[in-house]
Amino acid sequence: MKIDYKKELETASKGMIMIHEPKLLIKLIVRMIVRKLHIRHAGMILYEQEKDSYVLNISRGELGVKIPAGFTRFNSESPVIRIFTRKEFRSLTFNRNAIVAEDINRLIWREGVIRNGNGKLTQQLLSSVHEQMQMLNTVACVPAYYHHKLMAVLLLGEKRDASRFDQEELDFFSALASDAAMAIRNAQLFESLKREAERNRALFLQTIEVLGSTIEAKDAYTHGHTDRVTEYSVMIARHMAETGAAQFPENFFENIYIAGLLHDIGKIAIPEAILNKQGKLTEDEYAVMKQHTMRGSEILKPLSLPKEALEGIHHHHEHFDGNGYPDGLKDGQIPMAAAIMAVADAFDAMTSDRPYREGLSKEAAIAEIKHCAGAQFHPLAAKALVELYESGKI
Amino acid sequence: MKIDYKKELETASKGMIMIHEPKLLIKLIVRMIVRKLHIRHAGMILYEQEKDSYVLNISRGELGVKIPAGFTRFNSESPVIRIFTRKEFRSLTFNRNAIVAEDINRLIWREGVIRNGNGKLTQQLLSSVHEQMQMLNTVACVPAYYHHKLMAVLLLGEKRDASRFDQEELDFFSALASDAAMAIRNAQLFESLKREAERNRALFLQTIEVLGSTIEAKDAYTHGHTDRVTEYSVMIARHMAETGAAQFPENFFENIYIAGLLHDIGKIAIPEAILNKQGKLTEDEYAVMKQHTMRGSEILKPLSLPKEALEGIHHHHEHFDGNGYPDGLKDGQIPMAAAIMAVADAFDAMTSDRPYREGLSKEAAIAEIKHCAGAQFHPLAAKALVELYESGKI
Repeated sequence: MKIDYKKELETASKGMIMIHEPKLLIKLIVRMIVRKLHIRHAGMILYEQEKDSYVLNISRGELGVKIPAGFTRFNSESPVIRIFTRKEFRSLTFNRNAIVAEDINRLIWREGVIRNGNGKLTQQLLSSVHEQMQMLNTVACVPAYYHHKLMAVLLLGEKRDASRFDQEELDFFSALASDAAMAIRNAQLFESLKREAERNRALFLQTIEVLGSTIEAKDAYTHGHTDRVTEYSVMIARHMAETGAAQFPENFFENIYIAGLLHDIGKIAIPEAILNKQGKLTEDEYAVMKQHTMRGSEILKPLSLPKEALEGIHHHHEHFDGNGYPDGLKDGQIPMAAAIMAVADAFDAMTSDRPYREGLSKEAAIAEIKHCAGAQFHPLAAKALVELYESGKI
Repeated sequence: MKIDYKKELETASKGMIMIHEPKLLIKLIVRMIVRKLHIRHAGMILYEQEKDSYVLNISRGELGVKIPAGFTRFNSESPVIRIFTRKEFRSLTFNRNAIVAEDINRLIWREGVIRNGNGKLTQQLLSSVHEQMQMLNTVACVPAYYHHKLMAVLLLGEKRDASRFDQEELDFFSALASDAAMAIRNAQLFESLKREAERNRALFLQTIEVLGSTIEAKDAYTHGHTDRVTEYSVMIARHMAETGAAQFPENFFENIYIAGLLHDIGKIAIPEAILNKQGKLTEDEYAVMKQHTMRGSEILKPLSLPKEALEGIHHHHEHFDGNGYPDGLKDGQIPMAAAIMAVADAFDAMTSDRPYREGLSKEAAIAEIKHCAGAQFHPLAAKALVELYESGKI
């Protein structure tokens, strides 16, 4: 059966660049070569810019004829690389677009005859390439260039019918290797950019966590409070979404996580004498304490945080009946993130010990939350917390 | 002169995917069409996944025959989109891989004859497409699909020799449009990923800035100190690099910026009574105060900050002669970031007013820095500050 190489190349190249996972892409390309083009096994040595070296990325084929070892690295002095990168050797591959094992002995002989003994270096290189190819179970090496830079070497095993590679086939593999090398490079760049975006996101979230924890270095009584409120808030939100009590946009959970971590950040601006006072605050002291929601918003102003997170921080002391602070909002006016955090915050405050009073049991605190649902607390958020408690999750 | 379309397509497609700026890529493709393929003007309507609609991305050509307006948006009901997306109209373009203006009247006539009056809808659509094409100065529309999804429509103006498009040409443009659409999509994804990485980086740095500023909410005497130390530190480092006094890795300046912002973060854990004490600290109080470098490291531990930044924060009170804290490092042992910050920190502390003493003049502070260079201060860092002062930059 004659293979229509032009058609196979079009099919193979089509859409290669839309695959942005290098490993998957290489797998698909090598599988295509093995299955559709009837080659026993194939692999690809790929240039890695970050390390300025070449790596054998994958090699697959029929059982028992696998090219050995996965992640062999080739530096630029390796014979199988040098033969394609040094100008003085270009003529060796000029005609065929490849180095084919069966040609090598003839090439070595020709070097000897033509150059009359001056071709020693070339002969040595060709011998080393031959050895490497045998080690790699490879009968043809096809280079792929981009802007005169060697991007990849496609390694081909024997054809299944054991026939020789003809020139049409080598030209096809040359075009394929070149398309593939670019697609793989593209995917690698994609992946590294994606990793960078994720790393930066992780750094951002870590910094938010540290920022949230700074208040614990100052406020002796809040040990673990920030983390618990964050955890409860996210659990309440997830429960509301799961039970259909509310629908939230995709980022809501990350935003309430951020808001939870930062909800008391404004306390950094409250004097320690008030923050750590043992016993009930005077009216004046309480007025200062209440400023922490505003001060939090001020501290976070330079940060382009999502609106939902900022609202959660600013309004986490509003009451459902309008008797909260800082703005005295009521029911529908209170952003849902803030309403959820208010319940989580109150529950943790009630159940935590203070030097001047012991914490309530969870049971008692839940009874209090139930009692105040619809007055201090948003009924749906309070209901979610109660259900989480009753199912043993909190 | 006959154009070798196969060769032009290979040249055009080659490397398209290595261009990751959508605007540049579209410009190159359209320019190639206009210049090499002798079309008067060309444009491309491109699918935008984010908005699930089509946008006229660019259109260029000879003077006076530009397709109007840059950012026209087409929804999926627009005739020039519908004709390529609805199954019932597929047969209209099946043979030619395109809609060509001069065919339209014949198509309308054919619909009338063949369908015996049942082709009204198709006739109306064809009329609307014709109108749109006239408005867009377009004589041929070539669709590009990927996985049966319309990715783009290539808009072609007249040929310069005013001849008709033959089928070989239309097939070529179809292949080109399809390669181009994928390359552009690839570039768009690349750009949006890059933007995401940058946005996350900016969020991280903003959060670091806020984190650094929290100490100012607590320590009444440090107003602006953090920002000034950061600015001086970066200036000293840049000056040292410019004058050849030191060589720094690429990220050094960002790292010293981060370190500057966070150098006093540990003071959050120091009692306000000590931090804001008017007058000299007792020996015990000073011992507590000195803990701020260690506490800073502790607070920042969960954050995977670069080593250089962490070292800067931890060691910014080391002295060149070994008499500093927390570890009593000397000369070469002190990380350069820390040595630079030590000079910047001392200079700002000396020149700032305190409630119990007035700040020194810059001149007097510089004299003191000079005096202590090689003892308290790293001589090269001190020299750089002195030079910045003498050239009027600080």
